[in-house]
Amino acid sequence: MNNLFTILPDLIGTFAFAMSGIKMASKKNVDWFGAFVIGLVTAIGGGTVRDLLLDITPFWMLDSRYFVTTGVALLATLVFKEKLMRWSNTLFLFDTIGLGLVTIIGISKCMDAGFPFWVCIVMGTITGSIGGVLRDVLLNEVPLLLQKDIYAMACVIGGLVYFLFLKLNMTKDTAAPIAALSVMLVRLVAIQFHIHLPVLRSVHDKTKDTQLPK
Amino acid sequence: MNNLFTILPDLIGTFAFAMSGIKMASKKNVDWFGAFVIGLVTAIGGGTVRDLLLDITPFWMLDSRYFVTTGVALLATLVFKEKLMRWSNTLFLFDTIGLGLVTIIGISKCMDAGFPFWVCIVMGTITGSIGGVLRDVLLNEVPLLLQKDIYAMACVIGGLVYFLFLKLNMTKDTAAPIAALSVMLVRLVAIQFHIHLPVLRSVHDKTKDTQLPK
Amino acid sequence: MNNLFTILPDLIGTFAFAMSGIKMASKKNVDWFGAFVIGLVTAIGGGTVRDLLLDITPFWMLDSRYFVTTGVALLATLVFKEKLMRWSNTLFLFDTIGLGLVTIIGISKCMDAGFPFWVCIVMGTITGSIGGVLRDVLLNEVPLLLQKDIYAMACVIGGLVYFLFLKLNMTKDTAAPIAALSVMLVRLVAIQFHIHLPVLRSVHDKTKDTQLPK
Repeated sequence: MNNLFTILPDLIGTFAFAMSGIKMASKKNVDWFGAFVIGLVTAIGGGTVRDLLLDITPFWMLDSRYFVTTGVALLATLVFKEKLMRWSNTLFLFDTIGLGLVTIIGISKCMDAGFPFWVCIVMGTITGSIGGVLRDVLLNEVPLLLQKDIYAMACVIGGLVYFLFLKLNMTKDTAAPIAALSVMLVRLVAIQFHIHLPVLRSVHDKTKDTQLPK
Repeated sequence: MNNLFTILPDLIGTFAFAMSGIKMASKKNVDWFGAFVIGLVTAIGGGTVRDLLLDITPFWMLDSRYFVTTGVALLATLVFKEKLMRWSNTLFLFDTIGLGLVTIIGISKCMDAGFPFWVCIVMGTITGSIGGVLRDVLLNEVPLLLQKDIYAMACVIGGLVYFLFLKLNMTKDTAAPIAALSVMLVRLVAIQFHIHLPVLRSVHDKTKDTQLPK
Repeated sequence: MNNLFTILPDLIGTFAFAMSGIKMASKKNVDWFGAFVIGLVTAIGGGTVRDLLLDITPFWMLDSRYFVTTGVALLATLVFKEKLMRWSNTLFLFDTIGLGLVTIIGISKCMDAGFPFWVCIVMGTITGSIGGVLRDVLLNEVPLLLQKDIYAMACVIGGLVYFLFLKLNMTKDTAAPIAALSVMLVRLVAIQFHIHLPVLRSVHDKTKDTQLPK
């Protein structure tokens, strides 16, 4: 998949993920270096965890474009500042395109490593969503992923679509873009119609965890 | 060790670890998916870190039962809700059984990889306790492990018992269940008699970290 | 590099890193075991992440001196308490020596694994700074690294100095100590003259992240 049609959306996704990290970091009194780190972790964190689990060399260690793209995202934030907000529709679109693409890249890498389909869906979801979890942990917030999740469920559904179409004898080259589009569509629809999973009711527990129950 | 006597307690332990995660998550306004993620991280986090350190394939990528068991734990929480609390004694027992078992599994895997006994004890402790640390970090709390620890010290003592008995020419098959029971016993006794390590007194420091000392 | 001149500063660095972790932990009501864990994570966290990314066995699993040194640091804290503060100049010096050394160790390991120079500089920086990030995350604080960074930028500059001198045909044996000294010097100068990167201005965003932009 190493051609312009893959590289361009991949870098667009990296840019959008990095921007989302830098924007959140800007609320937390970080310096420029800290903003770069948060942008980077948001953009490459998911793929790094996936590659560690699959025992392959983390992708960004083989290609400097991810660091450069994050640097460009920081520069854009510093230069354009508030003007960036007018482009928030475009950034949102980039972010959604990126999510669809990295999910499928994660699934493909896991299939190449020979794992069953449910592990591949987990890896696609990890690729798409763990960067944001690491961003939130570093910024000392409860991860958005755990609250009203839009990202991870879209990755799971896109992964299911992918394997459904492979099951129906579709080729990978046809199923992959359909699955990526499914991820994007699910996210757009979920946000537009405020669809999300119910919140878990608090489970009250009168016994204390550090005392032996009687 | 791949028989019913291992698999059953392993899944009982996974169920109890997942339940403890889901219960804590329910205090933090997470949705169902978030609760599943926290349950999963609590149940498989320690073993995953161990397997990454030992450079072997994370155990849950080879066996879907851990994901299924976590799903069952979430379902049980959603269906039975407050009624679950009447079973908190049983859950506490499951959790303690699970802790003893996963500690010994962690030690065994590390011995198979050829590391010295102190590394194996560290790996057993990581297996038993890092899941809870990741749970607390994701829920934005200072890990319980760092405060009044019951878990990790029990793992360390169980590990020492294991290697002591091996040193005394006991076979692994005899030493393993004794060590697992030691972990459980230490935890039960520590909780029952409120035994814990002293708290570290705050070290006051008049010089500021970001200034060169004069 | 396995001789007294390497081992001694390495252990001095480990001791200083562990002390910095234990000191911070003491503000958070942790018990002795928790203080040991935080000291350990601060001292070995960066090198562990580096070794996982490079797919080599984490260094502390092959040498018990890092655990022992952390134990000594905890013991020193418990025994000497407030008196330790009189030595804070010495500890600061140890910490700075340690930073310079571990940065170069990180770069060397990455070069041995055959990666290009920019990956090596990233690995040197990870080795020097991720331990402190893990410490802050576990203690539920926004990492100092993200705020007024002194550590990571010093590692980056030291790494650049190293590769500049290699480019000028200097041998590794000559370039390494110069680069380590550069790390120390940059840190000392930055602290003495209150030099730090600007803080990122907050990027206001009127659209909500969870709503589709119109």
